[in-house]
Amino acid sequence: MSNPEILFQTAPDQYKHWRLAIDGPVATLSMDVQEDETLAGGYKLKLNSYDLGVDIELADAVQRIRFEHPEVRAVVITSLKPRIFCAGANIYMLGSSSHAFKVNFCKFTNETRCAIEDDSSHSGRRYIAALNGTASGGGYELAIACDEIYLVDDGNSAVSLPEVPLLGVLPGTGGLTRLVDKRKVRRDRADVFSTLAEGLKGKRAKEWGLIDGYFPTSKFQESIDARIKQLTSDAAPVEGIKLTPVDSQNYKYLKLKLNRDQRYADLTVLAPEGPQPTTAEQIQEFGAAYWPLQAYRELDDALLHLRVNEPLIGLVCLRTEGDAENVLSIDQMLAANRDHWLVREIILNMARVLRRLDLTAKSFFAIVEPGSCFAGNLLELLLASDRSYMLMDSDATLAVSELNQGAFPMSNGLTRMQSRFLAEPERLDEVFGDKKTFDTEEAEELGLITFAPDDLDWEDEIRVAIEERTSLSPDALTGMEASLRFAGPETMDTKIYGRLTAWQNWIFQRPNAVGPEGALTNYGKPTQAHFDYKRT
Amino acid sequence: MSNPEILFQTAPDQYKHWRLAIDGPVATLSMDVQEDETLAGGYKLKLNSYDLGVDIELADAVQRIRFEHPEVRAVVITSLKPRIFCAGANIYMLGSSSHAFKVNFCKFTNETRCAIEDDSSHSGRRYIAALNGTASGGGYELAIACDEIYLVDDGNSAVSLPEVPLLGVLPGTGGLTRLVDKRKVRRDRADVFSTLAEGLKGKRAKEWGLIDGYFPTSKFQESIDARIKQLTSDAAPVEGIKLTPVDSQNYKYLKLKLNRDQRYADLTVLAPEGPQPTTAEQIQEFGAAYWPLQAYRELDDALLHLRVNEPLIGLVCLRTEGDAENVLSIDQMLAANRDHWLVREIILNMARVLRRLDLTAKSFFAIVEPGSCFAGNLLELLLASDRSYMLMDSDATLAVSELNQGAFPMSNGLTRMQSRFLAEPERLDEVFGDKKTFDTEEAEELGLITFAPDDLDWEDEIRVAIEERTSLSPDALTGMEASLRFAGPETMDTKIYGRLTAWQNWIFQRPNAVGPEGALTNYGKPTQAHFDYKRT
Repeated sequence: MSNPEILFQTAPDQYKHWRLAIDGPVATLSMDVQEDETLAGGYKLKLNSYDLGVDIELADAVQRIRFEHPEVRAVVITSLKPRIFCAGANIYMLGSSSHAFKVNFCKFTNETRCAIEDDSSHSGRRYIAALNGTASGGGYELAIACDEIYLVDDGNSAVSLPEVPLLGVLPGTGGLTRLVDKRKVRRDRADVFSTLAEGLKGKRAKEWGLIDGYFPTSKFQESIDARIKQLTSDAAPVEGIKLTPVDSQNYKYLKLKLNRDQRYADLTVLAPEGPQPTTAEQIQEFGAAYWPLQAYRELDDALLHLRVNEPLIGLVCLRTEGDAENVLSIDQMLAANRDHWLVREIILNMARVLRRLDLTAKSFFAIVEPGSCFAGNLLELLLASDRSYMLMDSDATLAVSELNQGAFPMSNGLTRMQSRFLAEPERLDEVFGDKKTFDTEEAEELGLITFAPDDLDWEDEIRVAIEERTSLSPDALTGMEASLRFAGPETMDTKIYGRLTAWQNWIFQRPNAVGPEGALTNYGKPTQAHFDYKRT
Repeated sequence: MSNPEILFQTAPDQYKHWRLAIDGPVATLSMDVQEDETLAGGYKLKLNSYDLGVDIELADAVQRIRFEHPEVRAVVITSLKPRIFCAGANIYMLGSSSHAFKVNFCKFTNETRCAIEDDSSHSGRRYIAALNGTASGGGYELAIACDEIYLVDDGNSAVSLPEVPLLGVLPGTGGLTRLVDKRKVRRDRADVFSTLAEGLKGKRAKEWGLIDGYFPTSKFQESIDARIKQLTSDAAPVEGIKLTPVDSQNYKYLKLKLNRDQRYADLTVLAPEGPQPTTAEQIQEFGAAYWPLQAYRELDDALLHLRVNEPLIGLVCLRTEGDAENVLSIDQMLAANRDHWLVREIILNMARVLRRLDLTAKSFFAIVEPGSCFAGNLLELLLASDRSYMLMDSDATLAVSELNQGAFPMSNGLTRMQSRFLAEPERLDEVFGDKKTFDTEEAEELGLITFAPDDLDWEDEIRVAIEERTSLSPDALTGMEASLRFAGPETMDTKIYGRLTAWQNWIFQRPNAVGPEGALTNYGKPTQAHFDYKRT
């Protein structure tokens, strides 16, 4: 890869585009995009438009609020630019990006917005979009990820999704789905709104359910303040922890080996060692160094790195190493203290990282050998994999914990174990019975693993499986995995990642968008888009 | 269009590829594809592979069984070719087709398979796939649309989905979704199966849930017969009706005006006139000439024609003409006799046609004026539209009937009225209260229509709306409409038409499939596919 590597670690004192201010129970996240501070060349981030770098800061800020400022009950998202909240994803960045980058960019921004909603649903923090100016495209999609949206009524500011009429693509960050599924805007109104380049201003936007209120310029700030006051009246002080930097070059609980010539990676998660906290207070003291937080933050970083910086790696072999008992003790500790705010956040973060894995467009094989510790939370790695290989050896084991029964829901709302046994839900009783640890024969009998080769076949079988997988069409695998991983119910999230994303990916390749005469290609140029009007 | 027009009307005595035999309560549908009887040049339909022409016959046969042979309780789908059931969609046909044709082909074959499942769930007919030879790709996808699958155990025959490993595309007719959602095959096994070109034979196929049983060659026919006997033991004779041909050149209840230069069509449905049946027996006498059957069969034909033969028509203005009272009387008659087999089939067919409309990749505007009859079942046309325009005139009215409350579910399982009022379900009580007919003001107040221009603005507003709509990117509109039309719950059907279809459409454009070095392009040639292995 000749492209510069994209790093996903940042911190408030390094932000270029956002300011995070904490005032007791209120966090204010102000967007002030620096137009020259781009991740790549060739475009300027005018009018609070964004590229991946801007969104990496937003994702970091949401994460920090949850861990470092648990006392915060309301988060105001607003802009420091006059008359503009946010103009959405930068069009010239999109126009000059590769297809794969566009797809990964949209996926990450979607995950950031889902993380906002995750905070809101599970940690009860209220997100208020204070639109002190126009929110268009991704700007409105950011607003619609918040719980409440207020727009300034200055005769000019509007909310809009101009992607279809102006760019010939879809709003790519969940906007269409959230319009009809989250805000339940009537579909004919959603149709009109999504084809209206200039969008809608206060009164009609409110009437159609696109915003929750609008206030004249002179009363905007005080109205927002009043609403925030209502939302934070019962706030109490809580002490946060510091999210120390993840060292991408030197993970503590992760080994990442890139076999670039063979187009696959070995990713090994290491079990915790040494004394672990035995009370919630001790967990708080351990802070970011506590294994389930550090290991999963490292895993998150590695997944993002693989997605964006290692496109040629098509397969990840997931392995674990260490004492399964130590992993199970962690789970026991987390389960016993799940009502403590920090433990709750740690579990929710693990769940988000595991969903990031589910949504990663690479194949995953879990490899289980003696010395592995696919136990409790780490068993989820196996359950999230497209298939698993477990050596037929009495020293190889899998183990379940209480956390496998609901702590880590997939995007479809099911646990990975429920997804696995859709056909035979009664299996869940066997898996979660008195016996918690299973050797290879038992795991095979229970249906927990795909293949159980014996010692003689083991190396050949794994080698051939890897060779075969990495020889297949990467695009067909992406579509196949997206279709097989999420059986059963659908949610707004699965609609966003499945339906909307797939359509957007399709459109992102169409000549009408990205061809020489396409709308995305010609946006802002003196030339005009010309469409092939054949409907597909 | 220089392509020859594709016609969707056929009948058993014209079938080239299927034989339909009725023996009391058992229908046998045998596939015997004639390799030279193709819809286009450049390929041969070897090994019971199919093109759209083969599937048009299958769709017709399923429809005829329902209406002409209601006494049938079990349908056996099998092959007259030795050692092969069906090799799926013809690869050379796919390789030589335009992107738009491939997409429309897959959509139609999906609708045919959903129609089989619709018959099975709502009319109780059991579909048995008697696989007397290998079922690969679309062949297995046809089997998996049936209720039960039996495979011959001849040491050779297998079921398989070889699309990913051999062609670099997805099984495009719902196969992946039905694997994990209908048959609930474990996702790791589904992963292995879908990447295994040669597929699985009897024993393992049964163990993994891919089939329901397997029998040695010598016992195959008798085992199928025995199963059929079990299924049809309680059959009783019923008299069917004759499905007379739909005259595509001369619809009786439809006017289709193609404004090709402006890229839109006016499609007007006419209300029934004259005396109508007043008993179920009279309905049976009217047969295919009964308005709700004839009008909706004509509508179905027109929609298919627009999809496949008129790709440049991007917008359809739906209009109705005639006496709304006559439409409402029909609904009353249907509702009162819904337990009669023919009335049930007529209603189910109307529901399927309306779903075909929901799934058509064209924009729909409903246009309501004095003289329109958007009442009862025809109101569904308005509710299915992306938006509606109703002239502010006291002579323009809409009316609801009992059938709007559940007779015509969308693919997502909701009525169109429920979909419309997701945000305010209490509105349903107002809409379905004592008052059944609403003028423009009332319709607007209730939220039934999008816009209500007055006489002065009417013509201009419609003209500008049409011009604007047809100027937008047709691809962006397709993705947008697919995202906005199906809010709320998801079902296997919506997953197939939303998620799976969108991914398949994406892959159908990727160079790894259709480029000069793509797998689809190079299938069966001495040259080999070469992939760009970057994951997206």
